[in-house]
Amino acid sequence: MSLLGAPPRVVAVGAPMFADALTAQAVAVSQVDWRPPLGGEGTPGEVARVLADPRHQAANATAVGRMLAAGAELVDVRPAREALGLDSGSFLHAGPPIEWERASGPLRGALIGAVLLEGMAATPDEAEKALTAGGLHWEPCHHHGAVGPMAGVVSPSMWMFELRDPVHGGTAWCSLNEGLGKVLRYGAYGPEVVERLRWMSTVLGPLLRTAVGASGAVDVKAIATQMLQMGDEGHNRNRAGTLMFLRELLPSLIDSGAPTSEVAEAVRFIAGNDHFFLNLGMPACKLAGDAARDVPGSSLVVAMARNGTDFGIQVSGTGDAWFTGPANTPEGLYLGSFGPADANPDIGDSAITETCGIGGFAMAAAPAIVRFVGGEVADAIEATQLMYEITLAENPTYQVPVLGFRGTPTGIDAVLVTRTGILPHINTGMAGRVAGTGQVGAGLVNPPESIFPEAVAALAELAPLLG
Amino acid sequence: MSLLGAPPRVVAVGAPMFADALTAQAVAVSQVDWRPPLGGEGTPGEVARVLADPRHQAANATAVGRMLAAGAELVDVRPAREALGLDSGSFLHAGPPIEWERASGPLRGALIGAVLLEGMAATPDEAEKALTAGGLHWEPCHHHGAVGPMAGVVSPSMWMFELRDPVHGGTAWCSLNEGLGKVLRYGAYGPEVVERLRWMSTVLGPLLRTAVGASGAVDVKAIATQMLQMGDEGHNRNRAGTLMFLRELLPSLIDSGAPTSEVAEAVRFIAGNDHFFLNLGMPACKLAGDAARDVPGSSLVVAMARNGTDFGIQVSGTGDAWFTGPANTPEGLYLGSFGPADANPDIGDSAITETCGIGGFAMAAAPAIVRFVGGEVADAIEATQLMYEITLAENPTYQVPVLGFRGTPTGIDAVLVTRTGILPHINTGMAGRVAGTGQVGAGLVNPPESIFPEAVAALAELAPLLG
Repeated sequence: MSLLGAPPRVVAVGAPMFADALTAQAVAVSQVDWRPPLGGEGTPGEVARVLADPRHQAANATAVGRMLAAGAELVDVRPAREALGLDSGSFLHAGPPIEWERASGPLRGALIGAVLLEGMAATPDEAEKALTAGGLHWEPCHHHGAVGPMAGVVSPSMWMFELRDPVHGGTAWCSLNEGLGKVLRYGAYGPEVVERLRWMSTVLGPLLRTAVGASGAVDVKAIATQMLQMGDEGHNRNRAGTLMFLRELLPSLIDSGAPTSEVAEAVRFIAGNDHFFLNLGMPACKLAGDAARDVPGSSLVVAMARNGTDFGIQVSGTGDAWFTGPANTPEGLYLGSFGPADANPDIGDSAITETCGIGGFAMAAAPAIVRFVGGEVADAIEATQLMYEITLAENPTYQVPVLGFRGTPTGIDAVLVTRTGILPHINTGMAGRVAGTGQVGAGLVNPPESIFPEAVAALAELAPLLG
Repeated sequence: MSLLGAPPRVVAVGAPMFADALTAQAVAVSQVDWRPPLGGEGTPGEVARVLADPRHQAANATAVGRMLAAGAELVDVRPAREALGLDSGSFLHAGPPIEWERASGPLRGALIGAVLLEGMAATPDEAEKALTAGGLHWEPCHHHGAVGPMAGVVSPSMWMFELRDPVHGGTAWCSLNEGLGKVLRYGAYGPEVVERLRWMSTVLGPLLRTAVGASGAVDVKAIATQMLQMGDEGHNRNRAGTLMFLRELLPSLIDSGAPTSEVAEAVRFIAGNDHFFLNLGMPACKLAGDAARDVPGSSLVVAMARNGTDFGIQVSGTGDAWFTGPANTPEGLYLGSFGPADANPDIGDSAITETCGIGGFAMAAAPAIVRFVGGEVADAIEATQLMYEITLAENPTYQVPVLGFRGTPTGIDAVLVTRTGILPHINTGMAGRVAGTGQVGAGLVNPPESIFPEAVAALAELAPLLG
């Protein structure tokens, strides 16, 4: 039978326009879910060079193996001045490096609040002047072994969780979670924000330090493992994790010898903030990402971070280089009367959770999260399933019950992202675009496409020439 | 075309033997999942009489409406003597009424332990003699507004949770959960069991009473609602529920004025027992079941309860009558070196959870439970889906995230069970069959078939004669 003798059988690839038009004419069509690879003219050659690097496969196996093996224990709680050697006038922030002129509203707002907290200015105006005058400086949390949610601003007097990786020996830090709404990390800096931070430094931090000292190291990875069995994904839903962390420390908190009114206040604060565990899950993931760094030839993404203006990634085989592009604005659900026009572009180091296989990558474990970030339950399950396409491993520890206890998709490969055009799926909070606003919602976001082929190009540069 | 002119197209109904045989011969066959209705020769007529009762539809709507609307608040914690007017020498137990001679090992063991706890005997032998001598007596928890897990034995000095239904005004009670392993409710009565119960009566109970008094009523239904979003099904998995209950009472526990060592001990006990919330979820369901009682013409099941020998149900339209049959033995996973030969038949009032739409009926909300009771994740989801076939409503409050927040199947209809032959699906613990053993495992079980057509027959007797 000749090709044109039979009725046509149609396969459509990529954008659905063609298939839709045929369907409208009652022609049967098989639609193939495909999108073009990322990058430009040079990208296919660069991909080929990276794949041809004889170190590449083993390097990726080594890097993701370290990411999966990393442990995370809370070993201390202490001020950033002491833990990180942060001097007066120095601040840390989320995402890749950025100067004041390009900084987003929430990052500026959080820096203003931190200057007020440190007593270096009496008013927000004075604080802003101090920040633009040149005497103060700020660097990424990631450059100091730390991670910070949203604006991620850390100042010397803030207390930090200190986590240790007992397998590889790394250390990572994160501030204590302030709760939702008008809080520093969302760019708010009003008197109630600064007052809460002072209480956290004078009461909550010291109490937690005493409790951790008495209880001994708290296994944060074990809690993260459990929470995925209890409807949390570890980025935007940390409800069970927070309760389990509280349970772990409770006996030593109660036995701390502190006044019972202070203990009750601290417990009420932690118990009343379903996100408290986020600031423990993030440094746990930071330890896993750091364990996978600096394996020559590896295209594994070891950090994804945003400062509210730029989205940056770091890749195992390219050292401390940042590959950055403009941050997208999340889509999702808004608090109160806020809407899309109020939302700042994507901000925070919290995408370290997705980097290490939880958060948006584990959404199928947390179907109830669609009530917070939008979408349907089926979307949450599909999001996790899609991420297996761009990751190097299934996490033997972090498992998704509803997928038959399949391990979460872990270890983003910049090459796989570039070749498939499938972008990492990130759950996130949304900060108000104007400094001082605070949180306006929560939703979903992707990194900018360009940064993955850029990372591949840099890896290709480092690949040995084959002869 | 004549019937026999074309190749045969085969539909097989019921047991798969016929379909399997054809499949083995490469004949295409459509298998229909059907099983014969329950009961005997008279059952179809009795079903018809119940369905023809002009009150029947409205009665079921009223009864299940009350079940769904019932609230549950913890309002007090106090000794059974005071709460239930339980006199010295009187005991309560799980399931329908039963005499010593027919009582199972774990029920006998728990009664022996309770006699020891009350100081009415110095040794287990003496206790057993006292129990067979005739001076002591025991009645079902259900006859006194109470429910008890497993053996469900309550004695005057045990402390009880007291729950109130703010919608219908009912009250229900349940003892405090002792943890797993060698515990009274599983029929163990060793010195460590009695010592733990003494501590619960002298320290834990009074502390909880003070805390509830200070915090005000605790909304148990709200916690049960949340726990279904956090991987619990409320019968064999109560991990998130326990943590949320602890969170609720923590500030008042800490501020109770009790010695911090006692508070720390109580918190450690509750936090170390993932089943602590079960004894709050059960009376919450008891309130819902009781609210639905005594609607003439209704075939709604308002209680399912087992004493280790008999499985009994009560139905809204037939008052306090029990319809009983021999309890089946659960199938599931065993602790340590225990096996099927060690397991006692089904025991406990905890099937009140399934009666009211959680537990085995909400397994799809708790896929991780298959690690505790056996089976695959798909089985858990199918179990919930099958229960919609025999229930009257979808619970607007108790929702299953992975089923797109569909309400749990709630309100078992004895007529639907009889007509479809689909039996309620119950998650349960397994007690050792020998008195004194304790828990041997956890698994799944069904009620005996006969009790549903018996209930229908009793309803038919009460239906008005049509003529």
